[in-house]
Amino acid sequence: MKPEIKALTFDVFGTVVDWRSSIIEEGNQLNSEWGWELNWEDFADRWRGMYQPSMEEVRSGKREWVILDTLHRESLLTLLDEYECKGVSEERVEHLNRMWHRLRPWSDSVEGLGRLKKRFILATLSNGNVALLVNMAKFSSLPWDAVLGAEVSRSFKPMPHTYLTTASMLGLAPEECMMVAAHNSDLQVASGLGFRTAFVCRPEEYGPKQRTDLEAEDDYDLIANDFINLAEQLNC
Amino acid sequence: MKPEIKALTFDVFGTVVDWRSSIIEEGNQLNSEWGWELNWEDFADRWRGMYQPSMEEVRSGKREWVILDTLHRESLLTLLDEYECKGVSEERVEHLNRMWHRLRPWSDSVEGLGRLKKRFILATLSNGNVALLVNMAKFSSLPWDAVLGAEVSRSFKPMPHTYLTTASMLGLAPEECMMVAAHNSDLQVASGLGFRTAFVCRPEEYGPKQRTDLEAEDDYDLIANDFINLAEQLNC
Repeated sequence: MKPEIKALTFDVFGTVVDWRSSIIEEGNQLNSEWGWELNWEDFADRWRGMYQPSMEEVRSGKREWVILDTLHRESLLTLLDEYECKGVSEERVEHLNRMWHRLRPWSDSVEGLGRLKKRFILATLSNGNVALLVNMAKFSSLPWDAVLGAEVSRSFKPMPHTYLTTASMLGLAPEECMMVAAHNSDLQVASGLGFRTAFVCRPEEYGPKQRTDLEAEDDYDLIANDFINLAEQLNC
Repeated sequence: MKPEIKALTFDVFGTVVDWRSSIIEEGNQLNSEWGWELNWEDFADRWRGMYQPSMEEVRSGKREWVILDTLHRESLLTLLDEYECKGVSEERVEHLNRMWHRLRPWSDSVEGLGRLKKRFILATLSNGNVALLVNMAKFSSLPWDAVLGAEVSRSFKPMPHTYLTTASMLGLAPEECMMVAAHNSDLQVASGLGFRTAFVCRPEEYGPKQRTDLEAEDDYDLIANDFINLAEQLNC
């Protein structure tokens, strides 16, 4: 018999927050305020497109540990150059990079997390750094019990160390943790390490043209439409 | 001009929770349940008395990093032996060691933290490990935004690394953090590293015979009677 689930560990980007719409919406506001004419749908997709390759430099050992804020910033500077945005002030670069600290939750996230928090420890298991996730939690009222994942383990998912350190810091065996994610690959790695798994479908994370992660591709413990449905299935 | 304070970082044992009364109260209950006759006032004081020496082994480099749960447990086993408690089951040893996960807050802590949380990031900067602090927070309704300190920095206070890593993980300069503690030594180290400081007086932490930390011994930014008074002074 499997042990009782004590903690839910959450992927954040795409699973808890709608990064793409958040970036596009804030970007369009900045276009108005700053007199820019950036296509923020393209910009958001290309910025996010640099996410995995930038982490891979660290995962592969090519470069030493850096936090996601640093990688986001490097990608941002590259993109601003490609979009021929010249002479952007340091203050504006920092403001743009902090968009990732101001992402908005999906409409069901806050209510669902609030219900789940009564029964479980809620921890992030995200590639975001602590400050990014803490600021996002303050901004979007995400009630985490612990902000764990990449920075405290000094490794990026899907390295096993990221998952195992998070469980270990909670004083739990992987089997006592349920990984919650909208991405099959994340859950498959977690499952291989002993975590329980819950797939939460987010078919619009990548906008109307999304082609991946439209459904659960494995035999997870739970499959939910959203966090309220997840709370219901977990009797919260 | 000093920068705005963004985060309050808290010492926990003694400052937020009343470890001594909590251990004595739960211990006396266990005496009834288990038919033991331990003097829990002595036991609590001796257990806590082994706290600094046990961490010093790690701070000095004599032994590798271990979390506080491990040190608490070693001290517990030594004490059980000295008190001639023989053949205590593994389950009971674990239950006893977990008393530190079930410490009760001072009567003003939860209300004060709730008020402070609206304006500031609230993070632990404690020698407790993450699981200990997360479980304590769930048990006693402590609304931390982030559980930082010893384990995530792999060092025990008063090593500068513990304080500096906590500020760094929050993405803040030490000057943007205010260390809140009932212990002069903790605040003096934090202040030397650039933190703002708030002394909260807890004259009964060590029981009626307390002789230390009865008053602020330095020129801190704030001196408060309790967390509600601290919230008032910080306009929360």
